[in-house]
Amino acid sequence: MSSTRLNRRIVLAARPKGEPQETDFRLEQAPVPQPADGQVVLRILYLSLDPYMRGRMNDGPSYAPPVSIGEVMEGGTVAEVIESRSAKWRTGDIVLSYSGWQEYAVAGAEGLRKLDPSVAPVSTALGILGMPGLTAYTGLLNIGQPKPGETVVVSAASGAVGSAVGQIAKIKGARVVGIAGNRDKCAYLVQELDFDAAVNRSERGFSEDLKAACPQGVDIYFENAGGAVLKSVVPLLNNFARVPVCGLIAQYNLSGPAESPDFTPLLMGAILTKRLTFRGFIVTDFAGQQHEFLRDMSEWLREGKVRYREDVVDGLENAVAAFKGLLRGANFGKLLAKMTA
Amino acid sequence: MSSTRLNRRIVLAARPKGEPQETDFRLEQAPVPQPADGQVVLRILYLSLDPYMRGRMNDGPSYAPPVSIGEVMEGGTVAEVIESRSAKWRTGDIVLSYSGWQEYAVAGAEGLRKLDPSVAPVSTALGILGMPGLTAYTGLLNIGQPKPGETVVVSAASGAVGSAVGQIAKIKGARVVGIAGNRDKCAYLVQELDFDAAVNRSERGFSEDLKAACPQGVDIYFENAGGAVLKSVVPLLNNFARVPVCGLIAQYNLSGPAESPDFTPLLMGAILTKRLTFRGFIVTDFAGQQHEFLRDMSEWLREGKVRYREDVVDGLENAVAAFKGLLRGANFGKLLAKMTA
Repeated sequence: MSSTRLNRRIVLAARPKGEPQETDFRLEQAPVPQPADGQVVLRILYLSLDPYMRGRMNDGPSYAPPVSIGEVMEGGTVAEVIESRSAKWRTGDIVLSYSGWQEYAVAGAEGLRKLDPSVAPVSTALGILGMPGLTAYTGLLNIGQPKPGETVVVSAASGAVGSAVGQIAKIKGARVVGIAGNRDKCAYLVQELDFDAAVNRSERGFSEDLKAACPQGVDIYFENAGGAVLKSVVPLLNNFARVPVCGLIAQYNLSGPAESPDFTPLLMGAILTKRLTFRGFIVTDFAGQQHEFLRDMSEWLREGKVRYREDVVDGLENAVAAFKGLLRGANFGKLLAKMTA
Repeated sequence: MSSTRLNRRIVLAARPKGEPQETDFRLEQAPVPQPADGQVVLRILYLSLDPYMRGRMNDGPSYAPPVSIGEVMEGGTVAEVIESRSAKWRTGDIVLSYSGWQEYAVAGAEGLRKLDPSVAPVSTALGILGMPGLTAYTGLLNIGQPKPGETVVVSAASGAVGSAVGQIAKIKGARVVGIAGNRDKCAYLVQELDFDAAVNRSERGFSEDLKAACPQGVDIYFENAGGAVLKSVVPLLNNFARVPVCGLIAQYNLSGPAESPDFTPLLMGAILTKRLTFRGFIVTDFAGQQHEFLRDMSEWLREGKVRYREDVVDGLENAVAAFKGLLRGANFGKLLAKMTA
């Protein structure tokens, strides 16, 4: 039966130079393989599209090996078990898997996590209750360490990670200022997520607007952006400010050396004289905190203290365009591709 | 008696633009003031010359207010009490004070620390047993946290702070690589201070030499330099490396924006993907560790585990030229001006 089923998948066709192009990817069709003993066949329901994926398209050393040319693009997925040769899983089970940009996958019984649709919409396992939520929670609490009354600034603030960072910081008693790329996103941050202020980085007077929004300076800058946003934040950082470095979406598409004057002397001078801490992290560094994260975040969702927004595109065939938009900030909330197979 | 005594002092005449010039300073003469009740008159024996002083010459916000135009340049000093109107001090006492670039000073009874010439040469209170030693000790141990077998790189390695950093790191079981500005300094690091390797930053092949000296990468980079040295170290940093940012001597004389291409995207990318920690500090942040520092460092000196070198110039009138040389790396060891009054 499954031998006649066709899988559509997107493979990396070439390593993007700068902004990814449609030609860097290839949509392929192939029969879904037969599962071996202990394996299951998954039908993908949702594919998570995340900024980190841009890094996996590059060759060269990083915290994870790159996707090989011709290989299916990696990615977190929510899927339904449609065939099981494992005692652990039954047809109809909904699971979190890391099956990549495709409609079907064969997976081992281990490495899947069962999701309960009665607890929360299963797509949240890729967002607020998943990797982005854990990223926000662990980076903010371990590195940022917000204290009541401190000012927390977060960039890419309406995104999956940023929106969680701001809301957790509010729960911890901080004053929260979000940076986002357009007016609608800024309005959403203040009106829907109760941020204290939001600043539009696309406006000419962005640096002045940000300064005005932070009259007490900045104690924590949760860095998702890099580039011009970082340069505007650095002068506002208070003594002993902490900067969890989570993402640098403004520079993922850079190729070759930047042409602007070297900001490093100013950055290092600020780190020295203001005794700043810049610390990079990857969510897996804090994998041991998964349990307390799920406990806290589930409770905050139940209590209405944390809200989330999803930006869902339909069909694998739209994943590449949606991903390109993500790097430009075209999405609004957690970006997901809903599979239609 | 003291009313007839003339004090020579160096005041800041103008704020240097870039490299300090002789005309930015003025040598003045004035009578030594009469001490009030509770005060003492000090004859300065040694003036400490340190890179941080360049920052005090600039206007604008920093961790300490700038020296005002016309004011005596600040600095740590070792002095002899030559007149006392305080029950706490006697003529002949040798003290650590913060009396600045001059030959005599009137000081309150508090804020002086008595030195015992039988324990160590009193000049060491400005070096290995003083602020530079405490800087090395607290920055390396609190932020760097060296573990046995790790590789520690330190820049400005033959200087007062750097030489202490390397030797403390050796005591903690690390492999130590020093970066210095000429062959003699490099030879000194390896032959006299038992560094595992030393690399000359003035050589053309510096980046390659440094890489070759760190076959296991770099776990701690104790940053005294900034500039080109930092750029050569960043690619060598291992995952989870720590960078105590103590000084940036290569950039203290910069005025206006740097003209080289922006290194910030590479730096931030390294911080993110390698989960680096960059943390600036000032020695006063760790003032509470003075007691344990003096205990440990005194013992290491007695045991011969730590050595030090002083570069002593004679006379206040040579302080400016010596300080200018310090910013170029012309000194060799802790720079002191021996007062001749």
